[in-house]
Amino acid sequence: MDLTAMGKAAGQAKYALQKMSGEDRNRCLLAVAAALREQKEKILLANGEDVRKGEEKGMHPGLVDRLRLSDARIESMAEGLEEICKLDDPVGEVLERFTRPNGLELRKVRVPLGVIGIIYESRPNVTADAFGLCFKTGNAVILKGGSDALASNSAITQIIRESLGAQGICMDAVQLIASTDRAVTAEFMKMNRYVDVLIPRGGAGLIRSVVENSTVPVIETGTGNCHIYVDEDADIGMAVDIILNAKTQRIGVCNACESLVVHEAAEKELLPVLGEALKKKQVEIRGDRQVKKWIPDCTDATEEDYKTEYLDYILSVKTVSSVSEAITHINTHNTKHSEAIITGNKEHAEQFLKEVDAACVYVNASTRFTDGFEFGFGAEIGISTQKLHARGPMGLKELTSYKYIIQGNGQIRQ
Amino acid sequence: MDLTAMGKAAGQAKYALQKMSGEDRNRCLLAVAAALREQKEKILLANGEDVRKGEEKGMHPGLVDRLRLSDARIESMAEGLEEICKLDDPVGEVLERFTRPNGLELRKVRVPLGVIGIIYESRPNVTADAFGLCFKTGNAVILKGGSDALASNSAITQIIRESLGAQGICMDAVQLIASTDRAVTAEFMKMNRYVDVLIPRGGAGLIRSVVENSTVPVIETGTGNCHIYVDEDADIGMAVDIILNAKTQRIGVCNACESLVVHEAAEKELLPVLGEALKKKQVEIRGDRQVKKWIPDCTDATEEDYKTEYLDYILSVKTVSSVSEAITHINTHNTKHSEAIITGNKEHAEQFLKEVDAACVYVNASTRFTDGFEFGFGAEIGISTQKLHARGPMGLKELTSYKYIIQGNGQIRQ
Repeated sequence: MDLTAMGKAAGQAKYALQKMSGEDRNRCLLAVAAALREQKEKILLANGEDVRKGEEKGMHPGLVDRLRLSDARIESMAEGLEEICKLDDPVGEVLERFTRPNGLELRKVRVPLGVIGIIYESRPNVTADAFGLCFKTGNAVILKGGSDALASNSAITQIIRESLGAQGICMDAVQLIASTDRAVTAEFMKMNRYVDVLIPRGGAGLIRSVVENSTVPVIETGTGNCHIYVDEDADIGMAVDIILNAKTQRIGVCNACESLVVHEAAEKELLPVLGEALKKKQVEIRGDRQVKKWIPDCTDATEEDYKTEYLDYILSVKTVSSVSEAITHINTHNTKHSEAIITGNKEHAEQFLKEVDAACVYVNASTRFTDGFEFGFGAEIGISTQKLHARGPMGLKELTSYKYIIQGNGQIRQ
Repeated sequence: MDLTAMGKAAGQAKYALQKMSGEDRNRCLLAVAAALREQKEKILLANGEDVRKGEEKGMHPGLVDRLRLSDARIESMAEGLEEICKLDDPVGEVLERFTRPNGLELRKVRVPLGVIGIIYESRPNVTADAFGLCFKTGNAVILKGGSDALASNSAITQIIRESLGAQGICMDAVQLIASTDRAVTAEFMKMNRYVDVLIPRGGAGLIRSVVENSTVPVIETGTGNCHIYVDEDADIGMAVDIILNAKTQRIGVCNACESLVVHEAAEKELLPVLGEALKKKQVEIRGDRQVKKWIPDCTDATEEDYKTEYLDYILSVKTVSSVSEAITHINTHNTKHSEAIITGNKEHAEQFLKEVDAACVYVNASTRFTDGFEFGFGAEIGISTQKLHARGPMGLKELTSYKYIIQGNGQIRQ
């Protein structure tokens, strides 16, 4: 693996992409979508090999399912690229424009980031998705997928590269690090000279490893220990509906609710009803002493429970005696992802919105809406849980930077 | 040094700051400015100790000058805080507002970053400046200054903390890591749990060290290998004025011109005149063979020269035969800071603006304008040379993040 050569090639591709118009980039994406459809047998063959190897080494069935492609999943990869074409091109947007007293005219213009690195796990559809989002925004991309999906990712990347080449476009707009060697990944994370940003997509372990080992700027995504706080003035029926939705509509996602905080004045009305409803959905409840009063068969919650993103049919529950106590509990234990208050009290809502430290803070709605599509961005590369550059759902705009363009007529500095 | 305790204290201060109004923060800054004036003798005394130690160990006179404070410099620190008060408060600004078909009302609102870490070198005035910018934007700050300025930085920080305390404000809004132990700095750079962003301010070595060793997100600032390209259609008089300004008006700054690129059609008219003018300013010219034809006593430029930020009376010069060649040369050697084209040709200007990869790209103006004050931001924490979060001069807005505030009435996800 010659990563330096890949970095240089991406650097060349980056300039080639920046010279293309948004329409030209869309035309390319449509051709790539068609190529993926036409050559789906090649993808399925490679994927079959990955799946066979995974099963042989006893991979967890859930992971095998993530890895496995089908006609429908390839069709949805192709449709994904077509959907991306329909979105507005953010590149070139003038964000600000101002003139200085000395006559200098400044424009702050949206530009591609340059070269984006994506490190991801076993879902091979990310290969086409990530390429599509990066290409649409004029960025070259270097992909490092999971070793379990190497054959699938290689097949998909090859089809995309050949399609670009056939259209006379620089194939190195997308490159795959086709190695399973951890030292190569470690080197990739230190390629500051060639890579402008790294975006890890996957589980908490992968993300932590990228944050800890990368010297390239990273956008941290994903982990969500999301809370719902039911205030004293809550509509209890609404609270039950929202909690059931946020906990059980889909359990393995980062915007699912993992922890419930209940005002003591709402306990009596809420907890018995909620306990029954959650039990019907096979949700295990881990609560404090006060919770046990209303749901006697619940498990004792530990401090560790309050810190945990279960991604499972488990919910931790904590009781508090004020909105301030709820906010402190949430800010102490959350992962800055998504938090909700259920309340009819405007002042409490305002305080919660202002003081809770998270990318998305909700009043009277499910945390499950934290999603690029639900927000209307039409795309999503991930959900940022850090505060630099982008926070919350990241769509196309979040894959861009800006530059200042300054027009003068001979100005010099005094 | 108990960094964890400092991190926790900053975390508490962060919430306290976010509850304050912009007016309250301004009032505090004015009180701090007054306290710095009133207690200037204490600062001068501590600074005298730092200067004496520096001189004793043979510190370079230029560095001693950076370290030394005076009545005037303390006055300018106080005035700096007063100026910051006059700027608009960016916190709370609604950046976007939209309603989804399901009735969810979203607002994207500017919020403080949280806890900012600043690692800087020997100028003790950075202590007050950085505190002022962070405090104005509702951020807690942890400062790690150079060991040569420890007594000065400690005195300034103590005065600020006492002033905050006297006003009933959380003193831990500013904390100084009063240690000269490198292991402490190394630990500081890994405090992801408590610090949202690190901003290094200083020379290339310091910045590289922070980028390479930090796991906290970093905003890379400062290095500027800035180019001026004189096109075939340039106004030669304007070109000479701008080059002299960008090279010699102040040599030790990151937006000074370090390298000149000249179209072969402009050589004959430009180089002899420019050579004379630069010689009068004691600027050494390092050029290629073509440059030597017109400035026979110039030094031979090496590839290393074209990569170097001299911060000195030296200018590298390269000749090219097209604007495309100039752009390629610049993109290969620059540090993505500031680049200028001198031309009367609109198409060439457009191509240069679009294809040169830098934070600031100029037509017919000096690169020396890349500066938060010159851009009208009224403040500057540094000049970002990376593409994530902020690019170019960073003022108050660049010390903020955003959060999504979502108002619902019981929405759940289907």
